Amino acid sequence: MHAPFRHVALIGKYQATAARERDAVIEGIAAFLESRGCVVVLERSSAECGEDGVPRASRWPVLTVPEIGEQCDLGLVVGGDGTMLGIGRQLARYGVPLIGINRGRLGFVTDIPLEHYEATLTPMLAGDYEEDHRSLIQARVMRAGEVVFTAQAMNDVVVNRGATSGMVELRVSVGGHLVANQRADGLIIATPTGSTAYALSAGGPMLHPSIPGWVMVPIAPHTLSNRPILLPDAEEISVEVVGGRDASANFDMQSLASLAHGDQVLVRRSEHRVRFLHPRGWSYFDTLRKKLHWNEGGS
Amino acid sequence: MHAPFRHVALIGKYQATAARERDAVIEGIAAFLESRGCVVVLERSSAECGEDGVPRASRWPVLTVPEIGEQCDLGLVVGGDGTMLGIGRQLARYGVPLIGINRGRLGFVTDIPLEHYEATLTPMLAGDYEEDHRSLIQARVMRAGEVVFTAQAMNDVVVNRGATSGMVELRVSVGGHLVANQRADGLIIATPTGSTAYALSAGGPMLHPSIPGWVMVPIAPHTLSNRPILLPDAEEISVEVVGGRDASANFDMQSLASLAHGDQVLVRRSEHRVRFLHPRGWSYFDTLRKKLHWNEGGS
Amino acid sequence: MHAPFRHVALIGKYQATAARERDAVIEGIAAFLESRGCVVVLERSSAECGEDGVPRASRWPVLTVPEIGEQCDLGLVVGGDGTMLGIGRQLARYGVPLIGINRGRLGFVTDIPLEHYEATLTPMLAGDYEEDHRSLIQARVMRAGEVVFTAQAMNDVVVNRGATSGMVELRVSVGGHLVANQRADGLIIATPTGSTAYALSAGGPMLHPSIPGWVMVPIAPHTLSNRPILLPDAEEISVEVVGGRDASANFDMQSLASLAHGDQVLVRRSEHRVRFLHPRGWSYFDTLRKKLHWNEGGS
Amino acid sequence: MHAPFRHVALIGKYQATAARERDAVIEGIAAFLESRGCVVVLERSSAECGEDGVPRASRWPVLTVPEIGEQCDLGLVVGGDGTMLGIGRQLARYGVPLIGINRGRLGFVTDIPLEHYEATLTPMLAGDYEEDHRSLIQARVMRAGEVVFTAQAMNDVVVNRGATSGMVELRVSVGGHLVANQRADGLIIATPTGSTAYALSAGGPMLHPSIPGWVMVPIAPHTLSNRPILLPDAEEISVEVVGGRDASANFDMQSLASLAHGDQVLVRRSEHRVRFLHPRGWSYFDTLRKKLHWNEGGS
Repeated sequence: MHAPFRHVALIGKYQATAARERDAVIEGIAAFLESRGCVVVLERSSAECGEDGVPRASRWPVLTVPEIGEQCDLGLVVGGDGTMLGIGRQLARYGVPLIGINRGRLGFVTDIPLEHYEATLTPMLAGDYEEDHRSLIQARVMRAGEVVFTAQAMNDVVVNRGATSGMVELRVSVGGHLVANQRADGLIIATPTGSTAYALSAGGPMLHPSIPGWVMVPIAPHTLSNRPILLPDAEEISVEVVGGRDASANFDMQSLASLAHGDQVLVRRSEHRVRFLHPRGWSYFDTLRKKLHWNEGGS
Repeated sequence: MHAPFRHVALIGKYQATAARERDAVIEGIAAFLESRGCVVVLERSSAECGEDGVPRASRWPVLTVPEIGEQCDLGLVVGGDGTMLGIGRQLARYGVPLIGINRGRLGFVTDIPLEHYEATLTPMLAGDYEEDHRSLIQARVMRAGEVVFTAQAMNDVVVNRGATSGMVELRVSVGGHLVANQRADGLIIATPTGSTAYALSAGGPMLHPSIPGWVMVPIAPHTLSNRPILLPDAEEISVEVVGGRDASANFDMQSLASLAHGDQVLVRRSEHRVRFLHPRGWSYFDTLRKKLHWNEGGS
Repeated sequence: MHAPFRHVALIGKYQATAARERDAVIEGIAAFLESRGCVVVLERSSAECGEDGVPRASRWPVLTVPEIGEQCDLGLVVGGDGTMLGIGRQLARYGVPLIGINRGRLGFVTDIPLEHYEATLTPMLAGDYEEDHRSLIQARVMRAGEVVFTAQAMNDVVVNRGATSGMVELRVSVGGHLVANQRADGLIIATPTGSTAYALSAGGPMLHPSIPGWVMVPIAPHTLSNRPILLPDAEEISVEVVGGRDASANFDMQSLASLAHGDQVLVRRSEHRVRFLHPRGWSYFDTLRKKLHWNEGGS
Repeated sequence: MHAPFRHVALIGKYQATAARERDAVIEGIAAFLESRGCVVVLERSSAECGEDGVPRASRWPVLTVPEIGEQCDLGLVVGGDGTMLGIGRQLARYGVPLIGINRGRLGFVTDIPLEHYEATLTPMLAGDYEEDHRSLIQARVMRAGEVVFTAQAMNDVVVNRGATSGMVELRVSVGGHLVANQRADGLIIATPTGSTAYALSAGGPMLHPSIPGWVMVPIAPHTLSNRPILLPDAEEISVEVVGGRDASANFDMQSLASLAHGDQVLVRRSEHRVRFLHPRGWSYFDTLRKKLHWNEGGS
């Protein structure tokens, strides 16, 4: 049992949901949290906005994510994995833990169904939960000795070719040691969290969240033995563009188009980590089995 | 034994080779062909050009590819697989067969080393050879009921996502029957010839050239059971863009950027086929073993 | 529209089903067939047996499979894909077509649900159906110049290592041409029908039933570039055991343990083919999508 | 710089080598070691034996592996990876480090060519080397509450089906949490060292030796989404046989045939680790590139 939570931020992205339904859900959860003795705030972009894009007056204070990081001791995300990972990336430096409530479709990290949230959250708010730490990538792009881009990624860093150009050639090294020169459509460096996303589609293995490493997965590699490799996350990885045209880099959702030859994407483990909370008895493997339909048609 | 060849076109792309060396090779092969009783012509873009881009006067007549198609009974390609396939695509309609001479690196279809060409070509020119037929894709892009692009492909047709956008969603049907809605980086439809190129990198199988089908290989598919499928080449395949942004289509080297939702890429077998000639005793599998290094480290 | 069917054999394996339920299903279907003007016979091993293993007197004549082959013009199989393929193998030489009814779980070839059989079978019995031909493997094992085993296979021929021994080494050739020496756990040669069974688990592609080829899939090959290959079914394939201990061969369900070095498993296309009938509008791809859950979680 | 080595055991398996050549190699290396101030002993099974199987009198003392573990501070293995891993398994508990010299074919862990050993070993014997630690699996088989087999493995633990029986069904759990019920030909649990052996053939990723985890790789799994998973090595893994016939377990080279339903193979990280020494400047990735031919045909 951990200490109970008092200051809770409610976070949700409802672009695709009717405003009325959104209000009902938000108000229902907020009222529930208050009934459990919590002080509730709303994340700014989750609050109802007027035509002018400014949040309307609300029963609850409206805070930015950095303000939540400084003032709250729990974030409650209502949405999908994408929302959860985006907020996780921003809150990592503050150490504020997150709980994820999904709206109908189980996520890898948003694992509490909206219908059951009251029964599930009650013990968690009181301090009875499992804690799950996720590593975070801190990435930089270097050009001619200068840092030209920085980003964080919870899922992956991808360097890939342009849509109508041929393969890129990438020189990968770890801690200064050359790993390989790879010619491929691209290269994914995924965290354990990202190992079940794009990297899985490209042929990579799944990584339990406690594995202190990244998986490097080439996309359609020219050399058949360029298979996925598990790299330790203790040393910096460098991916240098040495061939091909129109290369670009993607960090979760954030893109940097037009990498030039000689540009280096540097990847290291962030000093911060993301804290996800789950109901007592939660297991990573239970989610995996459900998400990947391992129960169907088998015994 | 087939009839011997009399009118032979010499075809080579020497952009990367010094003019002097090029001349020596071309002249050597042309002289050899004449010594075997052949009438030699040069493919126009292979002939030595002046500063003005116009072929210089040459000992041999200079013809365009269509003229070769109409006047010659053999094409001799000196170069790599890319050159051979490009010429094959253009000559298919004329039924002119091709022999490929590589300049140092064995190709899948340019299988005669430059050093040994005399001994190897002598019986072939006299009509003693193996013939190998390759199927050819005839593709069209339909938009709002109109054909907006046509192309032929010896390797593959690829529909894929933009460099910095997410997955595309493609609706594939064969002969009017829905095969699947696939969400992926893209989709490759490869001929047997193309099955050892990009499709192999993306996880597809190899197809013996005599297989009358295409292999459809999804690139990094969202659904793990979207595995490569062998489709018969007797019916038309339609790939319709139904989701995603910035999709593009590639037909061997030729690209059509900016496919829109609703655009359909239609693929059918060309009525023409490409004729490659090989030395007596040639086997597709011998080339495969050498190209894929199956002999190394094994017994 | 084809000619209607008159002599129909009812075939089912009910080992796992209570006798009463079995009787009800058989009697229901038999009565339905008679109401449609068919003459019904029961396949011998499907008939109810007494304690002595001899079929009891029945309202319907009881025939062996060869007798069905000679006397009936349709086989109606109630069961799973295994039963259907086993009967298909035996009936191929007689040209008797088969319809498959599954008992709750959709099969690749038993595609009519038991609940809907009446409405589905009525037009089919009257001659309105789609016909689907499946190729069949004719296999022999040669030892010291003698044939020591023969078998037919609708799914696959597998040569593999013993449970506690290392890799086998197999020399594969097609039409007398060496394909490869493969060191692996084993090698699968699958028909299009078998391409969605074991071969798929081992990494092979799916083959539309009309593809006139086999897919050769190595199981856990030592050499990473030993990828699945599509071979034409027009020529004989030879798989010779050249290394390893305790190799065995499997032909669908039939096993031949203890292959010795020098033994050759020879695979060719049977002159017969299996005829499966499906309801009008049937598409192979519809079954594929359902069996592989391609609709889930996608759009 | 570490302390120099004084007591060195010379270990080699020369079954396949002529006795004379063996003697020359052993004597040459032994003499070299003495010239560097080392006291040399021979591993018992590496010593020249008479007809009676007893080692002949030798210039150097002959010790068993446990005696080497207690008396020596370095083992010098001349042979292949198999020999090196076998000795590594036995010496792990003693903490004696190993250097591997290969006889012509580069190994993953025997990385010093015989031709260059003098120049390479001189600084290493003086204490100038890179140290590389490998994790070791400690495995037990439980039957009805009793331990019926124990083994150590440097590469992998494999549970697989019999040669002529169908799939096995295995229930895998980690730290008491169910991971999955897998139906497959078998299941590999590989160390980082073993990730480039059998597990790679079965589709697994490569693991840098510093990754504190095992990779679990299903062999030809029935369910396509049963992909390789990286599991932390901090908790015990249980693989229980719940279906199929004739299952067996293999621990590196050691086999236990005939597992019964209910038998559990338990895998945990040994408290010992194996110490491999490499020349200064060694990198795991250099070996990987050479062994997997990543340099060929690329730029």
